[in-house]
Amino acid sequence: MEVYDTTLRDGTQGIGVSFTSDDKIAVALRLDAFKVDLIEGGWPGSNPRDVAFFERMLDVELSHACLAAFGSTRRKDALVEHDANLAALLAARTPVVTLFGKSWTLHVREALGASLDENVAMIASSVAFMRDQGRRVVYDAEHFYDGFADDPDYALATLIAAAEAGAERLVLCDTNGGRLPEEIAAATSRAREHLAAAGARVPLGVHPHNDAGLAIANALAALREGATHVQGTIGGYGERCGNLDLLGLLPTLVLKLGADQPQPLTEATALGRFVDERANLASNPRAPYVGEGAFAHKGGIHVSAVNRRPETYEHVPPESVGNTRRVLLSDLSGRANLVAKADELGDGALADEAATLVGRLKELEHLGYAFEGAEASFHLVARKVRGDHRPYFTLHGYTVMIDKRDGDGGPRCEANVRVQVGDVFEHTAADGDGPVNALDRALRKALEGFYPSLRSLTLTDYKVRVLAGPDTGTASVVRVHVETSDGERTWGTVGAHTNIIDASYQALLDAIDSKLHADGVVPGGPVAFGAEAAAEAPLRS
Amino acid sequence: MEVYDTTLRDGTQGIGVSFTSDDKIAVALRLDAFKVDLIEGGWPGSNPRDVAFFERMLDVELSHACLAAFGSTRRKDALVEHDANLAALLAARTPVVTLFGKSWTLHVREALGASLDENVAMIASSVAFMRDQGRRVVYDAEHFYDGFADDPDYALATLIAAAEAGAERLVLCDTNGGRLPEEIAAATSRAREHLAAAGARVPLGVHPHNDAGLAIANALAALREGATHVQGTIGGYGERCGNLDLLGLLPTLVLKLGADQPQPLTEATALGRFVDERANLASNPRAPYVGEGAFAHKGGIHVSAVNRRPETYEHVPPESVGNTRRVLLSDLSGRANLVAKADELGDGALADEAATLVGRLKELEHLGYAFEGAEASFHLVARKVRGDHRPYFTLHGYTVMIDKRDGDGGPRCEANVRVQVGDVFEHTAADGDGPVNALDRALRKALEGFYPSLRSLTLTDYKVRVLAGPDTGTASVVRVHVETSDGERTWGTVGAHTNIIDASYQALLDAIDSKLHADGVVPGGPVAFGAEAAAEAPLRS
Repeated sequence: MEVYDTTLRDGTQGIGVSFTSDDKIAVALRLDAFKVDLIEGGWPGSNPRDVAFFERMLDVELSHACLAAFGSTRRKDALVEHDANLAALLAARTPVVTLFGKSWTLHVREALGASLDENVAMIASSVAFMRDQGRRVVYDAEHFYDGFADDPDYALATLIAAAEAGAERLVLCDTNGGRLPEEIAAATSRAREHLAAAGARVPLGVHPHNDAGLAIANALAALREGATHVQGTIGGYGERCGNLDLLGLLPTLVLKLGADQPQPLTEATALGRFVDERANLASNPRAPYVGEGAFAHKGGIHVSAVNRRPETYEHVPPESVGNTRRVLLSDLSGRANLVAKADELGDGALADEAATLVGRLKELEHLGYAFEGAEASFHLVARKVRGDHRPYFTLHGYTVMIDKRDGDGGPRCEANVRVQVGDVFEHTAADGDGPVNALDRALRKALEGFYPSLRSLTLTDYKVRVLAGPDTGTASVVRVHVETSDGERTWGTVGAHTNIIDASYQALLDAIDSKLHADGVVPGGPVAFGAEAAAEAPLRS
Repeated sequence: MEVYDTTLRDGTQGIGVSFTSDDKIAVALRLDAFKVDLIEGGWPGSNPRDVAFFERMLDVELSHACLAAFGSTRRKDALVEHDANLAALLAARTPVVTLFGKSWTLHVREALGASLDENVAMIASSVAFMRDQGRRVVYDAEHFYDGFADDPDYALATLIAAAEAGAERLVLCDTNGGRLPEEIAAATSRAREHLAAAGARVPLGVHPHNDAGLAIANALAALREGATHVQGTIGGYGERCGNLDLLGLLPTLVLKLGADQPQPLTEATALGRFVDERANLASNPRAPYVGEGAFAHKGGIHVSAVNRRPETYEHVPPESVGNTRRVLLSDLSGRANLVAKADELGDGALADEAATLVGRLKELEHLGYAFEGAEASFHLVARKVRGDHRPYFTLHGYTVMIDKRDGDGGPRCEANVRVQVGDVFEHTAADGDGPVNALDRALRKALEGFYPSLRSLTLTDYKVRVLAGPDTGTASVVRVHVETSDGERTWGTVGAHTNIIDASYQALLDAIDSKLHADGVVPGGPVAFGAEAAAEAPLRS
């Protein structure tokens, strides 16, 4: 199967998807490394950013993929030589040009205002012109399946026109994304027979959308009926419900149907995350094969079985697509789960205290804590249950004030904290953009003198969730997730409270404790336990 | 087709899905109103929250749906009368009990450590026991399709055992979610024939998962081969890649395949959003049919064509599933688009000011505001753009203090506000569970004397989203959505600021303004514009 990626063109029609031209180049290089056959880089006739991208790509060498520029057939009354869109396609100087034309009589009449014959002529002359100019041509038959349902003879006639004019691929598009697998199979099969009868030996492709949640099934149906080229996007990004997700289709073809594809499947998960990053979108945790949750196990029964025999609850091995198994912390219901989690987290010593720990976790979850993504807080709870936790500081309280007055731009925020390290008291204050920012600054200002490595910390993510509780509205429990980085490692912590400031405070404290513990810093203070002395003090006294 | 919803059981296995028992009851009532046939409420043997849910459901009347409790067949060596799981199922006192048993020899040996015959006996005796106790039994054949692929005779024998013991539905589960539509079709067809040959006239069901992105296609394949019962979740929530999304399947059956179903499809979008809200998860914008983006148009060509002939780019009419067409505000490329947006927002008078309004909305969206679900704030922006807004009060500022000291249970929270109505100043303070709660109380305390109808307001929902901005962590922009009710109407408002307190404050102010405006209250104060006089004052002076 030939893989045609349109993440950089059709993918950008999705809500919230937006690439700079740097992003587009980076994505193109990753797609090339993944051995995608064709990369559709954009629609140079439609926007200046795509023109700039193709210009820059002239200096970029691809090792496997061919670059394609996308655009429509000529306008109704234009000569090919004078058509602005075709000129923009040529100016992109790509080896492949993908021309889309109309297959559906409704669109010919309504969108083009052309006669049926005029449209066929537009397809034929545009394809022929591009071939004359030395381009290889992929022909996208827009709305082919809808057009075929409405007027099969006409839809097939447009394919013949493109084939006879020299198109090297005929791609059947389910542009509105609502066709069912049986319809796709029947129309694809009919197109194949019709072309063969006409002596046109042009490979067929399919371009599915996911409006009925059937894009992958539709691609499989077309492939079964002889299509050999598939157009889709990484992550299924695209207009409305999205395009075919190539990373959802490829593993099925290779791992379940025995297809021999050059794409390195073990890179699939990393490729998906990379594109999400560049598109600035949160990864879909439920994405088939490559989602963060695709191999996550929550139920107690599942966990113990999957540890012994992975195939009991995994349809393919996670490593076959570069993904990993995860054991979720919530709803821990049995000893086996906890031991598995402790193993995964590399904390073998936990097994003995499993029951106590589960009890404590359940209490905390009842209060609104959630330890998914907050492994550092989980370890802290575990250390406390084990009696293995020695605090790095004692807290005597904090005050946060938010004050807005007439004529102010925004409110002023100030936090002060009162902490004790060893027998030294610190009472410090700091301003911030918001109350949590002020508190974070004040807290670290108070502690950095004792623990200088805290200077490297930055808060990289901060999430708030309001949990429906017995009270509604602002008196509900608030759960705060904080992600902290020291430039090398990133870790998550959690806090929960009816007061959002206090929930944030807990998560910030856990983040600090976790950093110091991971660095092997010994609790102390400059007076009672000077740094050198502390380094040699026993962990338990 | 019989619709069996397992959002409240299998759905809760999904990452981040978490319902309180209030949520579960609210969701059950919505599912009932949507005329789902069976509602699986939980697994009473597995956790106390589900036990509490079934206890509370004894006092809740359902008008259409039957409630089902889920649990496994008895343990290997237990008598049914002494099996804790079966006892928990009985204690749930539901009319229907769904028992799951093993179909796959691998699982019988590995997970149960039982012999193949023992497993069959466990199924038969458990089903028979539940029937004896007056329960109707749905039998879920776990891993049926994997088991059938491995040892078809054994998988079929377990079905016969359940049927002969009195199960009223035999549900074939693709538990690991990796089977292909052809495999589902072949195995379902074989099961149907085998049962018919054995004289067992028990309706078949299907329980798909989405690990290969084929859950909907697999459900369609099973239905085509004679299954008449489908198990899935609202939104496709569930373990790993999720369960079958019922809202992705139902519209295809009704709108494309002509099925006659009692479920009111026009409520589908609202149901999906409701469950997302209760699960506290962001809605999937790309969800088939009900996603926020399912009928969103970005490209200029699409927008003009779809306005003339919706079927050109929409596979079904958005209103058929209770969704709406959206013209995305980003990339608006012409006046036609602006007018379409103003129309979509249902404020005919706006058309003239469309350009100014869209400009203002773009500015606000850039600052982090989002008006989806905050129509009251949108209308306020529109009134301001139109010069139609007269403030009900003047704000002179607020102070919020959060103070935590040694030995306190939690921090103390106090807010004071300084407002002016007419020529009367009010400086009031209030305590709260958290800073926003305190601010909300203080604000309403200050204004209720002037506007008594504000006493009826309650905050019914409060949501916080941290937006990735140029700064990371706690200095990012925070968007707050508030939902307010006066007992009759509910409306949404939005605020955005780097300071979460100020963002909340804006949303609270909009909520108050919107209430007073909707009630036709005239801005004023007790001295300058006594209530009686105000009622007769002209809206514009």
